[in-house]
Amino acid sequence: MVKEANKITYSKIAELSGISMATISRVMNNSTNVKEETRRTVMDAMRQLGYDTTDLEAIAAKSNDLLIFNIPSLDNPFYSLIIKGAKASAERNGYNMLINEDPIDDRSIDTFIALLKKTNAAGILSTNCISKQNLMKLDAILPIVQCCECDPSLDIPFVTIDDVSAARNAVEYILSLGRRRIAFINGPLQYKYARDRLKGYLEALEDAHIERDPDIIIQLQEINYDMAVSAVFQLLNSEKRPDAFFASSDVYAAAAIKATKRTALKVPRDIAIVGFDNIELSSMCSPSITTVNQPKFQLGLLSCEMLIKRICKEQIPIRSMYMDTELIVRETTQKQSPISRSPLQ
Amino acid sequence: MVKEANKITYSKIAELSGISMATISRVMNNSTNVKEETRRTVMDAMRQLGYDTTDLEAIAAKSNDLLIFNIPSLDNPFYSLIIKGAKASAERNGYNMLINEDPIDDRSIDTFIALLKKTNAAGILSTNCISKQNLMKLDAILPIVQCCECDPSLDIPFVTIDDVSAARNAVEYILSLGRRRIAFINGPLQYKYARDRLKGYLEALEDAHIERDPDIIIQLQEINYDMAVSAVFQLLNSEKRPDAFFASSDVYAAAAIKATKRTALKVPRDIAIVGFDNIELSSMCSPSITTVNQPKFQLGLLSCEMLIKRICKEQIPIRSMYMDTELIVRETTQKQSPISRSPLQ
Repeated sequence: MVKEANKITYSKIAELSGISMATISRVMNNSTNVKEETRRTVMDAMRQLGYDTTDLEAIAAKSNDLLIFNIPSLDNPFYSLIIKGAKASAERNGYNMLINEDPIDDRSIDTFIALLKKTNAAGILSTNCISKQNLMKLDAILPIVQCCECDPSLDIPFVTIDDVSAARNAVEYILSLGRRRIAFINGPLQYKYARDRLKGYLEALEDAHIERDPDIIIQLQEINYDMAVSAVFQLLNSEKRPDAFFASSDVYAAAAIKATKRTALKVPRDIAIVGFDNIELSSMCSPSITTVNQPKFQLGLLSCEMLIKRICKEQIPIRSMYMDTELIVRETTQKQSPISRSPLQ
Repeated sequence: MVKEANKITYSKIAELSGISMATISRVMNNSTNVKEETRRTVMDAMRQLGYDTTDLEAIAAKSNDLLIFNIPSLDNPFYSLIIKGAKASAERNGYNMLINEDPIDDRSIDTFIALLKKTNAAGILSTNCISKQNLMKLDAILPIVQCCECDPSLDIPFVTIDDVSAARNAVEYILSLGRRRIAFINGPLQYKYARDRLKGYLEALEDAHIERDPDIIIQLQEINYDMAVSAVFQLLNSEKRPDAFFASSDVYAAAAIKATKRTALKVPRDIAIVGFDNIELSSMCSPSITTVNQPKFQLGLLSCEMLIKRICKEQIPIRSMYMDTELIVRETTQKQSPISRSPLQ
């Protein structure tokens, strides 16, 4: 029906709906690159003109314009701005996005795949730590793009940062403050980011001819604030007391501040602290946390753009990307001026 | 096929799979109350026994066991524990859950309904502020349960807290500390929680014969930390300087701490601060924040249990629920002891 009625129909619909012929054509061809609101306006105009839209509505109802964003945990506020970036891209391109908070491992992969099928998903974004085997299993079913956490050895595109050099730069900065006993608080080593930040930390120490001391490397099994407070407090009360902490997450850095406050030591006078991620918490804490900024919104946005290109089978080369980080110096590493005229920092 | 082969089949499958006959029966009847992992084990056993599982797989692939949890924003860490509670209930009952972070208003309602249809969702949980008209529109399509934010005037079930009395209690506690000029930092008034907490604040003042002063009520348009820091800083530097802040969110309370630190005033000596929600941030801050605890995990869990009962059309009465809150006293209202032996509070 649509093809036969072609030009005259399109112009009449355009006239009635105030929507361009190009967009109407996209609605007719069930392109995902159309807002639901726009699609409905076109359908309303068609019905007013006496056309039967039943078939078009049925096709649209089944179209797969759904992206699933899989994250390991909503507890870590690190993910919220990444999701915002991805959503901005999804909306701009006429896709819906739903968030799935689940691990993807050998035990859960089948449930996850069943969910993808049931929801008729078009593609997957993930910031999760997924094994090679499971990544390949997913990639065989649907287009997938990894964001932040990734496996560069596979042929699956990703958008991330260079964790090794970001960590090395942060530790070099702490060394430049004259600190020599720099402890490291790290997250679970199954994550590439944790392995790479450890590598960067060790490289910086080696370059400065400082011997590594395993007793001042705190290796935690999850991003847990209370566990980190306990571990730091214990280290501060031991013979191995450090003069600085480098934390692979701002949550750990906040825990280091809390633990230090429970002793007679002062931040940054006795203990300098540098975090990672630049989540909102890092400026909420007192003293505010010096940290490595990740371009979170951009990481999400570009991963999603890449995913949509994969879904649309665009013939341009899809390259994986490493985005720049920057060190944001705040009060945990420099002398505080407690009374200031400025309400915001 | 299933009905004819009945008993013998079930016992053979049970023998081979190690799964109970009752569970196998639920798999055959495509009950949602079965884990995907279990369902797959049963299917594998059936295939090994020479049965064709094509039809059963097709039915399972289309079954609507998906719950959509709609939240206003992932920025506010308040929602993560609510979602955890809801997920625990969903998993226990064999449902999947995906999170949708979108406003639901006149502009977006059609897109949201289209999404529900496309994903073949079975029910909706929401912590969003939704108009009567849109709530009724959703309720006509799918079972819905409201969590925290709700409209008690409609016949739609909800699980929430009594915001009026929780706020009144918090302000009465601040009054009991001898404070008389209690400022209030509130969120957007389209939210019922914000209107009710304002009501509780005003009631407590009235009971104490303290005249309300509109100049010390900070009404913000969103849960935004930086905006709150600015507003509090301005108030602290004005002639109307309060001696305490009651904040309708811990994020605002954290902002009040930050703003006070930018002056010569001390918390809690000059300025007492009480927050709301008891999110993790409230114990991460220094000083840690006295706050009203909401049973977040339970709020999510019970909302989801209620939703599943609605989906299953259980004939038991579905009552709406008000859950208890409690005041957690921390350092923003009592004298701090800076040096302590305990690593955790």
